[in-house]
Amino acid sequence: MRSVQDQLAAVLAAVGPVAPLDVVLTDASGTILAEDVIASADVPATPVAACDGYAVATADLYGADPHAAPVLPVVHDVLAGASSVLRLAPGQAVRIASGGPVPTGADAVIPAEQTDRGDVRVTLSRVPTPGENIRPAAVDVAHGQVALAAGIRLGARQLAVAAALGRRRLRVHPAPRVVIVSTGSELIEPGAPARDGGVYESAGHALEVAVRDIGATPVRVGVVSDDRALLREALEDQLVRADVMVTTGGLSEYAHDTLADVLSPLGTVRFDHVAMTPGFRQGFGTVGGGTGAVPFFALPGHPVASMVGFELFVRPALRAMAGHTDLFRPSVRAVADQGWASPEGIRQFVPVAVSGSPTEGYRMTPVGDPAQWSIGGLARANALAVVGEQDTVVEAGQTVPCLVLEG
Amino acid sequence: MRSVQDQLAAVLAAVGPVAPLDVVLTDASGTILAEDVIASADVPATPVAACDGYAVATADLYGADPHAAPVLPVVHDVLAGASSVLRLAPGQAVRIASGGPVPTGADAVIPAEQTDRGDVRVTLSRVPTPGENIRPAAVDVAHGQVALAAGIRLGARQLAVAAALGRRRLRVHPAPRVVIVSTGSELIEPGAPARDGGVYESAGHALEVAVRDIGATPVRVGVVSDDRALLREALEDQLVRADVMVTTGGLSEYAHDTLADVLSPLGTVRFDHVAMTPGFRQGFGTVGGGTGAVPFFALPGHPVASMVGFELFVRPALRAMAGHTDLFRPSVRAVADQGWASPEGIRQFVPVAVSGSPTEGYRMTPVGDPAQWSIGGLARANALAVVGEQDTVVEAGQTVPCLVLEG
Repeated sequence: MRSVQDQLAAVLAAVGPVAPLDVVLTDASGTILAEDVIASADVPATPVAACDGYAVATADLYGADPHAAPVLPVVHDVLAGASSVLRLAPGQAVRIASGGPVPTGADAVIPAEQTDRGDVRVTLSRVPTPGENIRPAAVDVAHGQVALAAGIRLGARQLAVAAALGRRRLRVHPAPRVVIVSTGSELIEPGAPARDGGVYESAGHALEVAVRDIGATPVRVGVVSDDRALLREALEDQLVRADVMVTTGGLSEYAHDTLADVLSPLGTVRFDHVAMTPGFRQGFGTVGGGTGAVPFFALPGHPVASMVGFELFVRPALRAMAGHTDLFRPSVRAVADQGWASPEGIRQFVPVAVSGSPTEGYRMTPVGDPAQWSIGGLARANALAVVGEQDTVVEAGQTVPCLVLEG
Repeated sequence: MRSVQDQLAAVLAAVGPVAPLDVVLTDASGTILAEDVIASADVPATPVAACDGYAVATADLYGADPHAAPVLPVVHDVLAGASSVLRLAPGQAVRIASGGPVPTGADAVIPAEQTDRGDVRVTLSRVPTPGENIRPAAVDVAHGQVALAAGIRLGARQLAVAAALGRRRLRVHPAPRVVIVSTGSELIEPGAPARDGGVYESAGHALEVAVRDIGATPVRVGVVSDDRALLREALEDQLVRADVMVTTGGLSEYAHDTLADVLSPLGTVRFDHVAMTPGFRQGFGTVGGGTGAVPFFALPGHPVASMVGFELFVRPALRAMAGHTDLFRPSVRAVADQGWASPEGIRQFVPVAVSGSPTEGYRMTPVGDPAQWSIGGLARANALAVVGEQDTVVEAGQTVPCLVLEG
């Protein structure tokens, strides 16, 4: 029997960041940048007005009668996008729109609402201070600067920098494509009529959402029967478009559960008893040869067991493949409201509802019977309590580490 | 001049949850459920085996010689998906696969690895306890139970419940579609050649990502020139597919900035000076008549100002439209490493880098010059410090509320 720690180590040893790829800005969202983005120009290229108003040279206004409002001739209008930078002669003003290039010689922009908004001559209500309402050249990004460093996550604000530099594509660790195949002749797609002994397929649907939620790209193939030829064909067909393959079900050692048979000629997937509950049986390895080898996770069929397997093994692997360095869910230590038993030698994962805060501390209570797995219970939980292999009981009042699933 | 608080109140008064819609499971991901989902059946329908093994009646085994291993005839095999439930006669065992329906009369499943895996007769290494390795009927979800309550957010684990009940569609508050139009003849799409006075369009790209990051559906139209006819046509064309319209730029009171003119016949959008920096000018109202009235945000053109406007006004509105009740970013109180000046009567938002933890407390330092807006600075920040209207200075060591932008 393999420990959870050994299984995770085997998984993480087998995966690494997906090869960098040039993608358009939209597809770069949420990914890890794989290049330093060096600014090829100053942004803005010249000083620009930060508001609508009048560009003036403040030196012209010092020594003016402090009791008389300054009045200046308006010699030009400057709009955002004006292609040439004007030169301001002494004693003049230029009417300028927010974002417009500030004329050489001007050192302040007085807001329009602090003037009489004159067209030919403008009366200022006060003398502006040097630099007021001027955004200097390069204040957004300076030429030659590392505007975005390799390794950062590209969110809205980081992509704004890339766009402002005129970059349409960026080199990133792309989101891995995860093909999800649910195996089992007993499975029925939701929406189809129920039948005796049939089970609605839910594990694959949940995995599709979980994969998308961490920024990877799910491809849910749907239900494939336990027929060996069909299953093998489905898996081989999907390999070409997968960075990762995930199956659910097919782990039983009995008759029609044929996943191990089908996979053995295709790669290195091994099936282990892992010392955990739920999710006692787990398969992991690679499928396909050489550099095209695709990490393959064979998760249990029950949706609670498959989600726990996803959280423990698949999620850290997908984050590593996407170039993240922080691979794991946050964990809090919470005091159990009630006790329960835990099997010896097995790491037990129990859906719990955690409440509290970092300053007050956390409490938790199991959702449903800790000895049972329940889809409904997992849906109402917000964390998984983790009971160590050596513990056979959790006492009420005991502090237990909990993997936080939300937030 | 309008206060930030008044502007936000006007926005929130004008928006409400998008009308509920039946969507397929994949599209329900991340949305708020708009119905109670009542379980139409027990899941599982009958008790099922939690592992591969042998189903037995434990009463048959009590009183057996404790020093002799129990041996039972194996009368049948049961696989997952078996359509009829067997009846176990006294003294018999049934070989059963994980997920298979437990025969009537059996009350425990002993794992295969604790037996000799016999085909005709099986030798057990111990007497199982009643209930062991049996998942009772209805342990996942019970018939008639509110399996998912209206108002919850549908993540992977909640959608697993819906799928397990056979639901292909759910009634949800759908993610609002947000049309994003960047206005300004000076704007150039990233990737196109630079030109004098031209500015690469970045605000719309950043908004597209920010909209997607909160689970809404962005439709980025791209750059529209300041030509009134073209701008009007673009906005009217997009109205039909928008739940929300967002523009950037076009707020200058000078010549070619014509957004107010174009919008005035189309709806109720009003343009205000809002007492904040960055983002002194903000437009908000609705466009289109009657029940089809679409909330319309006219954000400033500079990407830092438009992102701050998005955070303060658009994001809470989109969350309200998506049916969320918690509308706002989390906020922490952080001690300033250094001081800076803040304009009187204006709420100032300063990109800052916050570090620390709830238990140790938080510190923060401005990223770049607090008196300037910088796309590069905003990209390196992880929070916005919020300096109140009455404050003209932040002192080093002062505690300042900070809107957390990440995590």
